[in-house]
Amino acid sequence: MAVQDKSITIVGLGLIGGSFAMTLKGLNPKNLWAVEKDEDIIITAQNRGIIDKGYREPDVPLRHSDIVIMCLYPDAAVSFVKDNMEHFKRGAVITDTVGIKAGLVKSINPLLRSDLDFVAGHPLAGREYKGLEFASVNVFAGASYIITPTERNNERALEMVENMVREAGFETVLRISPGQHDEIIALTSQLPHVIAAALINSGSGCEPGLFAAGSYKDTTRVARINSQLWTELLLGNRENVLARIESFEGCLAEIKNAIANNETQVLGTVLEEARIKREGIIRVLEKRL
Amino acid sequence: MAVQDKSITIVGLGLIGGSFAMTLKGLNPKNLWAVEKDEDIIITAQNRGIIDKGYREPDVPLRHSDIVIMCLYPDAAVSFVKDNMEHFKRGAVITDTVGIKAGLVKSINPLLRSDLDFVAGHPLAGREYKGLEFASVNVFAGASYIITPTERNNERALEMVENMVREAGFETVLRISPGQHDEIIALTSQLPHVIAAALINSGSGCEPGLFAAGSYKDTTRVARINSQLWTELLLGNRENVLARIESFEGCLAEIKNAIANNETQVLGTVLEEARIKREGIIRVLEKRL
Repeated sequence: MAVQDKSITIVGLGLIGGSFAMTLKGLNPKNLWAVEKDEDIIITAQNRGIIDKGYREPDVPLRHSDIVIMCLYPDAAVSFVKDNMEHFKRGAVITDTVGIKAGLVKSINPLLRSDLDFVAGHPLAGREYKGLEFASVNVFAGASYIITPTERNNERALEMVENMVREAGFETVLRISPGQHDEIIALTSQLPHVIAAALINSGSGCEPGLFAAGSYKDTTRVARINSQLWTELLLGNRENVLARIESFEGCLAEIKNAIANNETQVLGTVLEEARIKREGIIRVLEKRL
Repeated sequence: MAVQDKSITIVGLGLIGGSFAMTLKGLNPKNLWAVEKDEDIIITAQNRGIIDKGYREPDVPLRHSDIVIMCLYPDAAVSFVKDNMEHFKRGAVITDTVGIKAGLVKSINPLLRSDLDFVAGHPLAGREYKGLEFASVNVFAGASYIITPTERNNERALEMVENMVREAGFETVLRISPGQHDEIIALTSQLPHVIAAALINSGSGCEPGLFAAGSYKDTTRVARINSQLWTELLLGNRENVLARIESFEGCLAEIKNAIANNETQVLGTVLEEARIKREGIIRVLEKRL
């Protein structure tokens, strides 16, 4: 419904862009094009039939696209909008999939022609692998999609993107302000990535291998990180991430001190607090993930 | 082979004891008894046919048991050996499943009659749920089992336990000293549990719910902790756990400082180090878990 009379361009055929191509192709848009610097990836995508045509330069497809989905790193997304302002079709809706939103919206909105609408979005979906080869319609199935509107958005554009991602398989679509998004995502996504990296790095000189329990595997899973992307994401949300790391450090110190001082009752109480909190959120987590 | 001519008593029908009952019953031991304080659990286990008979008091089954598997908390395991020294059958092999080993071996060995052998063991298997209702033959399938021998053990007893756990579904059986065990388990199991609890506790006032990414779910999974058991496990391995927490804190501070100082290159290098290390252990982890 949302996409059948639309020409759509996906910019960047990585894990997320590729998954968008696969899901949207199945919805029969008028045209599904891709902009991708890597010629080999374009050929692969064309051969697999997940796009109609790929372009290394964006000007031609942009001129005819009603929806442009940027699946790029944060800085690259801003540059793409800036460099292609003259190429966007009149009235086009531009959207993105970057994991931080406040700085991005602040950078992109002032660049826009008055006829264009930028709908900032964040799919809460991913894998600890990158690239088109790991893209799949399953990446989006049942996940949440966050839209972060500003006063500049018109309702029609917001709904168009919301309907599109619902049709692409996202189960829940949420609206929240860019600032609130960055605050909460610092806890629910960025802090776990920082922790995973620190935990893996702290194991130097030790071969966990056969001694690793399931807890170690799960806690370090996302340490298999896309370091370039995550450097941008963490530095792009510095204040919130730092606040969350410090809050975590405080809670860790609480447990450490209880262990150091052999305080059975304090330790038991802190661990029991964790159990109760984790059980409190388990239903919504298990339902979704 | 290892168990068909043996009478075995499992002490404690929780998640691990119950899973042992289910797997060993399928191997047709001469007798499979259980000692369990909770009469309801005994009745359930007997009705489901996963034990031949359950007892609230240990003296009768112990007198005829060739193998005694204690599936108890650390302190309870020591007390059980102490309180029942006169009841163990001559030449019996006693084993346990406690997650820390050095202190346990040091406490139990001096209590033993000279004809008894205590084989300290640790199944690297578990769930973030407790109790017989979550026990299953799948809990052990493909997991590792660690045996921590001392000079007091005789080879026949060690091999009997090793063969038994292999037949119960454990894929890899490893021998390591009690001290080395506690050092490595502080990193590969205890630290992840501490981190999960601290992460959940640090989220107070924030409702992650629908905004939680897969990383948050995985990193907090084991925060649904058995607080009484884990208080004993952490305090029973204090020095090693504290050293691991401090090493982790150092690695976390490294990332935090790079973010605070906006050091793109430092941050990228640290994250890339994590990625490489995680990929280096991925094969052995994915194979096993």
